[in-house]
Amino acid sequence: MRRLKLSKAFTLVEPGPVVLVTTHDGRKSNIMTISWTMVLDFNAVFAITTGEWNHSFAALREKRECVIAIPPVDMLDKVVGIGTCSGADTDKFARFKLTAVRGKIVKAPLIKECLANIECKVVDIVTKHNIVVLEGVAAYVDHARKEKRTVHAVGDGTFIVDGRKLDRKRMMASRIPESL
Amino acid sequence: MRRLKLSKAFTLVEPGPVVLVTTHDGRKSNIMTISWTMVLDFNAVFAITTGEWNHSFAALREKRECVIAIPPVDMLDKVVGIGTCSGADTDKFARFKLTAVRGKIVKAPLIKECLANIECKVVDIVTKHNIVVLEGVAAYVDHARKEKRTVHAVGDGTFIVDGRKLDRKRMMASRIPESL
Repeated sequence: MRRLKLSKAFTLVEPGPVVLVTTHDGRKSNIMTISWTMVLDFNAVFAITTGEWNHSFAALREKRECVIAIPPVDMLDKVVGIGTCSGADTDKFARFKLTAVRGKIVKAPLIKECLANIECKVVDIVTKHNIVVLEGVAAYVDHARKEKRTVHAVGDGTFIVDGRKLDRKRMMASRIPESL
Repeated sequence: MRRLKLSKAFTLVEPGPVVLVTTHDGRKSNIMTISWTMVLDFNAVFAITTGEWNHSFAALREKRECVIAIPPVDMLDKVVGIGTCSGADTDKFARFKLTAVRGKIVKAPLIKECLANIECKVVDIVTKHNIVVLEGVAAYVDHARKEKRTVHAVGDGTFIVDGRKLDRKRMMASRIPESL
């Protein structure tokens, strides 16, 4: 995994892929599957929707750190499996044969098998709406990963795989941040 | 356009497509292109990131209504065009040859050419994070629209088109709302 400029990290989340979010509660690491995410700022600020119903939420609230990992489509069954069991009684890294890698800044682990990882600090929790605001503090991309297509959850148990890419850079030149 | 059960409306937004958001300020309608969206609840509650930098924001804040319209890929050039000009000096419905259709509840118009439309009320504005919380009050899908693929903005001027769909309904049975 190579470091990615933080100014590019929002481009990992903006397309709306299902992501894995890791936490570390001081003793154990956990992973949750999250489809409800949003970019809040070009400068690596993100929102995710989560709350008490996720076992990871306690660690997120207490340690104020997590990692957003972007799984490619060949990890879909693991992504669904992670989203349908609980860290309360499952070591998800072991059960889904995923490799935890130490990040540079936060204690929540990166997931080696993912396309990209973003170390994040919790900036704010908007309890009223179950929104957790995160700021990316380090980002990584695995350029060697051959499968680069991500998946988008529909919410009814189906998933849409990335298709072809269309380029509108010229039309959008005035709106693309210079840092890209 | 046929009515869609509100309990299914979140499935239009969850995959993370670029959307068009219409507003009506009492005199004129406007449209903005938004890629920063998130589902907040199965019960048709959504978040979008917007603020003073969007001309539509004043109407959204004042009238507390909008429509989220989901454009298919054959509208991409209009979507990009809408996102790169301002309602301050442009009638976007006229310029992009889009048809405004009166909804049942809100005064912001539906966009006839889109795959789906969700009439929304503003529930809250989290000013600190530029998050607008919306509740869907009526939803529609155009089943006759042949092009059903949506597009996902990467943020760098490129867009990912929907590819194939994968079914994991059986694996996810325990987590799919019964209302679907």
